Amino acid sequence: MRNIHALKLNHPRAKSILLLAALILAAPNLQPQSSPSINSNRLRQHIEAMGAIGKDPVAGISRVAYTDADKQGREYTISLMHAAGLTTTIDAAGNISGRLPGGDPKLPTLIIGSHVDSVPLGGNFDGIVGSFGAIEVAQTLMESHVQLRHPLEVLIFQNEEGGLQGSRAISGELHEQDLNQSTRSGKSLREGIAFIGGDPDHLSAARRKPADIFAYLELHIEQGGTLAAEKIDIGVVQGIVGNSRWDVTIEGTANHAGTTPMNERHDALLAAAKFIQAVNQIVTSIPGRQVATVGKIQTIPGAYNIVSGKVILGLDVRDLEQSRIEMLFSKMQDEAQKIAQAGGTKFSFQPVIDDKPALCDPRLRQLIGSSAKQLNLSTKSLPSGATHDAQSIGRLAPMAVIFIPSIGGISHAPAEFSRPQDISNGANVLLRATIQLDKEVWK
Amino acid sequence: MRNIHALKLNHPRAKSILLLAALILAAPNLQPQSSPSINSNRLRQHIEAMGAIGKDPVAGISRVAYTDADKQGREYTISLMHAAGLTTTIDAAGNISGRLPGGDPKLPTLIIGSHVDSVPLGGNFDGIVGSFGAIEVAQTLMESHVQLRHPLEVLIFQNEEGGLQGSRAISGELHEQDLNQSTRSGKSLREGIAFIGGDPDHLSAARRKPADIFAYLELHIEQGGTLAAEKIDIGVVQGIVGNSRWDVTIEGTANHAGTTPMNERHDALLAAAKFIQAVNQIVTSIPGRQVATVGKIQTIPGAYNIVSGKVILGLDVRDLEQSRIEMLFSKMQDEAQKIAQAGGTKFSFQPVIDDKPALCDPRLRQLIGSSAKQLNLSTKSLPSGATHDAQSIGRLAPMAVIFIPSIGGISHAPAEFSRPQDISNGANVLLRATIQLDKEVWK
Repeated sequence: MRNIHALKLNHPRAKSILLLAALILAAPNLQPQSSPSINSNRLRQHIEAMGAIGKDPVAGISRVAYTDADKQGREYTISLMHAAGLTTTIDAAGNISGRLPGGDPKLPTLIIGSHVDSVPLGGNFDGIVGSFGAIEVAQTLMESHVQLRHPLEVLIFQNEEGGLQGSRAISGELHEQDLNQSTRSGKSLREGIAFIGGDPDHLSAARRKPADIFAYLELHIEQGGTLAAEKIDIGVVQGIVGNSRWDVTIEGTANHAGTTPMNERHDALLAAAKFIQAVNQIVTSIPGRQVATVGKIQTIPGAYNIVSGKVILGLDVRDLEQSRIEMLFSKMQDEAQKIAQAGGTKFSFQPVIDDKPALCDPRLRQLIGSSAKQLNLSTKSLPSGATHDAQSIGRLAPMAVIFIPSIGGISHAPAEFSRPQDISNGANVLLRATIQLDKEVWK
Repeated sequence: MRNIHALKLNHPRAKSILLLAALILAAPNLQPQSSPSINSNRLRQHIEAMGAIGKDPVAGISRVAYTDADKQGREYTISLMHAAGLTTTIDAAGNISGRLPGGDPKLPTLIIGSHVDSVPLGGNFDGIVGSFGAIEVAQTLMESHVQLRHPLEVLIFQNEEGGLQGSRAISGELHEQDLNQSTRSGKSLREGIAFIGGDPDHLSAARRKPADIFAYLELHIEQGGTLAAEKIDIGVVQGIVGNSRWDVTIEGTANHAGTTPMNERHDALLAAAKFIQAVNQIVTSIPGRQVATVGKIQTIPGAYNIVSGKVILGLDVRDLEQSRIEMLFSKMQDEAQKIAQAGGTKFSFQPVIDDKPALCDPRLRQLIGSSAKQLNLSTKSLPSGATHDAQSIGRLAPMAVIFIPSIGGISHAPAEFSRPQDISNGANVLLRATIQLDKEVWK
């Protein structure tokens, strides 16, 4: 304002100029909800700073939940929340909450967020883009003096990579009896939650009620290569695919590889090989984006010179439609039965996980799409093949997920990368969608 | 003789009776080479006593080479040799030698033997039947006052189960530079050989010359189920199959199992599954007793939710004809190339072992067959799918192997079993064949 004071006020057009200047300077306050943008440089700097925490001596990032690196990452995240003007708490499950009060305290909370833990030898974008993007959105709202009607909460879920533990505590899917299971950190879930400041003895206190949540929005990297390959700015996620996993045990007869004629063998690994091929054939035999994977296999005893007596393999099937997962699995079981009969082996299927598909709310998808269009960003609807905390929160309230491109589709690896411009685009879509969403009145 | 002395010598037929009695009593000495039989009870007791040494707390027998149990088993074996009248030595490689001098010291040595080490959690018949059978043959010859022309040597090879180490030292196939390799005992080969009383620093002293060996005969359990299933007493081994092994590495691209569409995958485990099936199809597509096995597989990284980036599997191919092994392997490589091209993966083959087939000497096979027939035992010619020390000694001299039935074809397992009658039959065939062989004059 000093330059304005320096203007000669006796100039004939001084008053007009002053008025114009005042209008220009006041513009953000006059039309606060139409134009704020996130601070791209600041967001990039925060993500870069996080990349120094848990830097693995081998390669990439290892901020595995409940390790010292995870704790450091969480402390840095809390410091960013404080800088953004958020009031922070840690719930009984260890999730980090940062709140901005809403204009109408009776309204349920609008939640945005993601996670800051990583897989071992992972990247610095999975979870961080959505977490720091959400904090940036809150800080931009504050700095732009945009007062939302709903209370805004930035929620950083703990241990996403180890099975959505934090968000499942909020949705009531994580139970007291699950707390003794071991985690990648070496600590039990109970020890891990206590380590990061949670209160595992009162786990149920972390549970939320549907009535308390207005909606949940999550920004995330795609972790697939579709957006990057098709040069699309923003992915409007249709839903998070259901994910069913089984341990498949195949029992044959272990025998000497030199002395057992081919026609007298009951080779569990040969049966497994036929099954792996059958899984691939079944899942690719119909159109659609369904996927099925055998990614782990163990053969017993596992020697050059012994026909395999037993094989245990991991089967993973995913689709947006639960009925399609069930149909595919049924065909796989039928095929297994045929293989078993032909080779004198026995198949059994032990369910490991059965995460149901979580569809994104159509109104929220619409809102994300229109926000992107206002920013002149191209969009594409696509499913999320990876799991996200959004699917837990989706059990309680409407949710949606915004994707930005992952270069080369690489994720959970040191080469994971998203461009600063894409990150900035994603955070701006989240900002605009949040502001728009706040105005919605749903019945 | 006391009863004979008690006869009334003045009886008219006393002299005739005495003469007859003397003839009867002297009979074994008059026709020593036509009729001696081994002492079945003694042999059975020796085998049973050995079963208490290295009895594994879990199941079966663990007399793994260079362990304390192996040492105890060897000490017991040496004690049996001494009881049989053999002069024992331990060569530089740690093999146990027990010798009987021959009638003509200029003749080369006739060797019989086997091994007394076992696999972990193995049985008490593999190796023991042939080792103790050979000692029993020597003891029977001694007790029957049968003097062979050739020096007789009972040779107990060390560490057969860990790669024919003892017999390969004798044939010159084990080299100084191999001694640093580790063994199942935890000791290096060098430490192991020293542990059992060998002199690894002078390994080459164990090497033998072809001119010093007349022939080698080995009695062994079949380790397959053919003889037992067909109720055949004695197997006349045609030869020991060649055994080629490769580590097959399949490189694909590791990727997220949820976010990577099926048509964008380069799945190393799917390629491995197709290859395992191709191996089976190729080996069973032509008549013959050839076998091929994939018995071990490792997938990297090996998780439910990651498309495999790399697979390493073990391929084992065996046949009596080397050219057939090569032809089969060539077809497998061709098929791998097709699979690689179709799925965007890469196959490479790293040779692990390449043991050439070792054919049994036709004259010795003939001799084993005729010995069995004289004992009214049924015979069948068959290959040995398992390796034996005989194949090392076959590099130096004519060799042959006598099989007895393995019940259910089970071997290298606690349930390994051969009936006392079959063991006794085998040892008697070895005895008779040894006596006959000693008379042969080959050019």
